[in-house]
This record gives sequence, structure tokens and C-alpha cells, in this order.
Amino acid sequence: MIDEQRVHQALREVKHPESGHSLIELGMIRGIRVDDEQVRFTIVLPFMNVPVKDQIVGEARAAVEGLPGVKGVDVELAEMTQRERTHFMAAQEKRVGSAEQFNRIQHVVAVVSGKGGVGKSLVAGLLAIALKREGHQVGVLDADITGPSIPKMFFPTQRHPNSSPLGILPVESETGIKVMSINLLLPREDEAVIWRGPLISTAIKQFWGDVFWGTLDYLIVDLPPGTADASLTVMQAIPLSGVVLVTSPQDLAAMVVKKAARMAQVMGVPILGIVENMSYVVCPDTGRRLEVFGPSKAKIMAAQLGVPLLGRLPIDPQIAQLCDEGRIEEYRSDDFAAIAKRLVESAPQPRTSLFSQP
Amino acid sequence: MIDEQRVHQALREVKHPESGHSLIELGMIRGIRVDDEQVRFTIVLPFMNVPVKDQIVGEARAAVEGLPGVKGVDVELAEMTQRERTHFMAAQEKRVGSAEQFNRIQHVVAVVSGKGGVGKSLVAGLLAIALKREGHQVGVLDADITGPSIPKMFFPTQRHPNSSPLGILPVESETGIKVMSINLLLPREDEAVIWRGPLISTAIKQFWGDVFWGTLDYLIVDLPPGTADASLTVMQAIPLSGVVLVTSPQDLAAMVVKKAARMAQVMGVPILGIVENMSYVVCPDTGRRLEVFGPSKAKIMAAQLGVPLLGRLPIDPQIAQLCDEGRIEEYRSDDFAAIAKRLVESAPQPRTSLFSQP
Repeated sequence: MIDEQRVHQALREVKHPESGHSLIELGMIRGIRVDDEQVRFTIVLPFMNVPVKDQIVGEARAAVEGLPGVKGVDVELAEMTQRERTHFMAAQEKRVGSAEQFNRIQHVVAVVSGKGGVGKSLVAGLLAIALKREGHQVGVLDADITGPSIPKMFFPTQRHPNSSPLGILPVESETGIKVMSINLLLPREDEAVIWRGPLISTAIKQFWGDVFWGTLDYLIVDLPPGTADASLTVMQAIPLSGVVLVTSPQDLAAMVVKKAARMAQVMGVPILGIVENMSYVVCPDTGRRLEVFGPSKAKIMAAQLGVPLLGRLPIDPQIAQLCDEGRIEEYRSDDFAAIAKRLVESAPQPRTSLFSQP
Repeated sequence: MIDEQRVHQALREVKHPESGHSLIELGMIRGIRVDDEQVRFTIVLPFMNVPVKDQIVGEARAAVEGLPGVKGVDVELAEMTQRERTHFMAAQEKRVGSAEQFNRIQHVVAVVSGKGGVGKSLVAGLLAIALKREGHQVGVLDADITGPSIPKMFFPTQRHPNSSPLGILPVESETGIKVMSINLLLPREDEAVIWRGPLISTAIKQFWGDVFWGTLDYLIVDLPPGTADASLTVMQAIPLSGVVLVTSPQDLAAMVVKKAARMAQVMGVPILGIVENMSYVVCPDTGRRLEVFGPSKAKIMAAQLGVPLLGRLPIDPQIAQLCDEGRIEEYRSDDFAAIAKRLVESAPQPRTSLFSQP
């Protein structure tokens, strides 16, 4: 006779394809019931669209179907509660295998600002595009877990990553830029991720260590505003070649951006240069440059920090539109090609120590 | 004969004026040395400009000077390391008294956006100013610990708070708005606060519970971007009347702002309305409105969320300049008076349960 305990034992033998831990240990199985040789249970997932979903469901179903006395198996799917997800992610961290050993990443450049809304994600995206156009292999790791902007810029419709034996596969953009972001794992792009720091740090570490980036010349990391958990984790756990600071002409922005610069200095991460965004608006009627956030202070700031000014960008309604439509790769800007060129020149030479981080 | 141990004992009797805990317990005393009846020690402070600094130094000095055999006392000051500060703040939380019981705060309104740089702090500041002009007693609690913008907008020069027997005193602006922010405690406004979530949460709780706000009609809370620690702590630990959402015309911003709206719903906090910032730039030559971030989507968003649209604000170079000069209170805007009026109308009636929170 088949009973709940026997099903539980069988599911204990089914391993999560990424970490090798048992589904039971990871808290992924709920509510096993057996009625008249018919087995029912629920698999709970950290997100409804994790790439390994079908594999997990298939293996769990097969393990139970193979038991003597089982006539049928019904599997339901549900999303984890906050508490379950915390447990799951902590357990996953003690992992068996990892994609990291298969990745060959030459330069890791983080785009930071401290201040929100100065165009950090835009600069990260445009930088990736300009480097790709120069023939480099490029990836973008979106480390902004609670306010991710990268997927919306690169993809016109909601996309989800696949998995491979070597790790989660980033989603490739139209021109072949590899993108990983929490928003690619959510059922809806405007779903909230209401997490405290430790979960945010774990997610970022997984984007670095469990994603099969393959061979990249440049991985661009888009950081959230602030100098708290996400920034600390990126600067501590990811071997950065350096950071690019993004600022706007407001003193208020400059003040907060200096906090981010100070953080990079404290953490021993080189500052590769500054980009000033929202420098001006070009009036379509007169062609005049309107400095709507005040006169540029980028040169002064670059001099104060002793780093190169990589360039200045206008507020361009075309950018806003392309970003909103997931077509940022169609944007042509000579300004930006020059900025990327200066960055490549100022970036440190390939560090072989970046290969196969332990 | 005087010796280190005797000094240590004397300093154990000196209490921190806010929590009543011993300076020794709080880890505030370092390196006691006695040479030829001359005593030296260092007092370490969580920040160099804590308002109780002089009182602590005076009391510690007096306690040691009163010991038999002491000829002279040298006190040095230093700032705590991260580790010392973590210990200090955890110990302070187990406090003896608290300002909270003396505060009478009618409405607490949090200004949120999820997305950075859409003008949250500006809306928070202008809201406070408009309410003050209507004759209300108003305070602003800056809950953005890693990117605080409020003090720069309200004060032309660096200011520091004082203390009182009832708690830390907020700094008053030109027109009498009471302001509390981490930047008022830092020696320099561009100093970085590199903290993980738990420290950030403790700081926010202290701004609510240990600051003697007195009697206020409105306390405006300026939240950082994101739906992580700071937002969670504000929504869990502070009895909010509701939140005002700030957005910009970009879809990208709207997507992230919806995450913040979703968070408020999950946490059971009413959304009082939406303000759209950066709606347009007025060209000074032609008077034409340039929608540099695309056409407004505020009405659609308000309808989707079922909340009132409180108003739309332009990008105004005069605001940028007044913010940078600490003179935001001089800004005159009919747009904003109307927004504040609508907010007052939509705000819930005084909740007596908000008085004297336990």
C-alpha cells in the first residue's frame, strides 16, 4: 500500500538540478496526500518562472509514479512565502556545483551613483551596447533587485531565462548581449520584491556565481542607488575591475554621488571615470541647449576625485521612448561611442586573476 | 595611587544621557592610560557631531577629575568603527527612556516611489512647505540613510541637532519646519554611510522614537528608493496615515513605482495619491512645454491603482538652484499649493490611536 510517508521518502531522493540538494530539504514540497492510490502534492518554487521548473516537476513526478501501488500523480505549483524563500535561498547557498568555475570574464565594471534616477541603468545599458558594437562579448548583471530597469530597456516583451547543466542561462538581447535580472524571474515586471538585505545579497551572489555567463570581455554590473547591502555585496563578492560613476548637474546629486565615490575608495575599488547625465535638453524649436538642472559641475567633480570625465549626455526624449519600448539597442549616439572608447582606454588591462575565481 | 582600573570603575558610573546605559557598556571608552597622576582616555562617538557630545565629555571628565590622586585629565575624541557602532546601536535600542511618549503627531505621511531620482525628496520638501504655509505644525523625517537629500534642500550650511532631556531635537528650518536626517549627524555632508540593513533600520527607528518632535500636525517621511529594509521598517514600525507615490512620465519609472504601490498594498498602508514629477520642461524662448520624458501617464496610473492624481510638476531650473542653495522654502508654486490642498482633503481624519504610541 502506498502512503504519504513513502511518497515523502521518494521525493527526498529528488535533487534540485542547480544545487544538488533534496527538494524536501529545500522546503519545496508541501501537502502530500494519498487518496485511493492517487497521489497529490504541491511543489513550491522561489519564483513561478524559475528556468528549472519543468525539470523539477518532471523528476518529482517520475519518482512518485515509479512507486508500487501508485495509479496517478497530480502535481500543483505554488510560489514560496517569504519565509520559505529565505530558507530556500540560505540552503541553496551551500551548493554542490556552481557555474562560476566555467565562466571566463575579463573585465567586470560596475556602474554606480549613490543617487537614484541619474541614469545609472541607462549608462550601464549604453555602455554594454557600445562595447558590443566594438566587437566585444558583453553581459549585463542587474544588481538592482528592488528596482530593476535593465530588462525593460532591452526586451519589448517579458522574457524568462532557461537553464543548462552549467547553470542558469542569461537571456540574450537582439544584438547578443547577455542579460540577467530579477525581473526576468518574476511572473509580472511590476511585481514587488519586498526583501531585507540578506536575501538581496544572496540573489546578487547567485547572479554572479550560478549564472553561466560563458566567455565575456566585459560584464557590466548595474547597481541600485545607495551604499547599503547591494553595493556592499557587489564590491565585496565580485572581483570588480573598477566602477563608473554617474552623476547629474545638481549639487544635490553630486553630494550623494560623492558618497558612492567614497565607498569605492574605502572598499579599494578603482574609479574608472565619471559620466554626467541629464546635462541639458536641446530645444527642438531653437536648437538651444537648456541646462534644466543647472550648469555642469562634472569637470570640477572629476578633478576633485582625480578621475577622468568620460563624457556628458543630454536628456533625449528619443532615449526615453526607446527605453520604454525595449529598443534601446537601436539608439545611435556618437556621444556614447566616445564615452565607451574612453572607458576601454582607462580600464585596467585584463587581469588573469579574474579567470576562474575560487 | 590612581590606576587604570580605578578610572575604568569611575567611567562605568557615567551614563549616556539618552539611554541611561554606562559609557563602558556602550563601548564608548578606549585606551585608558595613567602616567604620573595624569589620566588619558579616548571617548568614541557613533558620529563626531552627536548632539550629546559635550555633555558626555563633561560628565566623563568630571567623574575622573573627582578621583583622589588625579592631577589632570586629557580626553580625546574619535569616531566609532563599524563594529563599535553596531554594538553601540544594538545596546542603545534597549533603552530606558524614549522621546516617543512625549510626541503628539497627528498624521504621518510617507513619500515613496520605488524608483530613485523621480523627485521624492523634492515632493516631500514641497509638501512640508505647503502644509506649513497653511498654518500646520510640520516635521520631515529623512528615512533615506545612504542618500539623504532633505538637509541640503532646507539648510544653506551644515547644521547639527541639539539634545534635550526629552530626546534629540530636530533642526528647525527658516520657516520652522522640524527636520531630522542622518546627514545632520555627519561631520561632512558627502561622507558615506556604508551600512547593511539592520543598522539602517535601527537608525530609522531612532529618528521616530528618540527624536523629540513635540506636537505636529504632519510628519512627512522621505523614503529611499527600493522596497528593501528602509521601506519595510518605515511601513512596519511607524504608524503611517498613508503614502504619497511619486512617479515620472517614463514607463520605466512607472513600472518600478508600481512595485512600491504593490508593497504599500501588501503592508496595508493606504495610498493617498500620486504626484507626477518631471512632466515637462517649459522652453524659456518659446514658452512651449517639452515632454522630455514622454507623454504623461499619470492619469492612467492613478486609474489603475484607484487613487487620486494629486498633480503634475514641471522640471524647473529654479527648483534645482534653490535646492542646491538650501533655499527651497523660497520657492513659490501655485501647482504645489494645490497638490498639498488635495492631499489634506484626501488624508484620513486624525486618528487618536496615533497619539502616544506604546
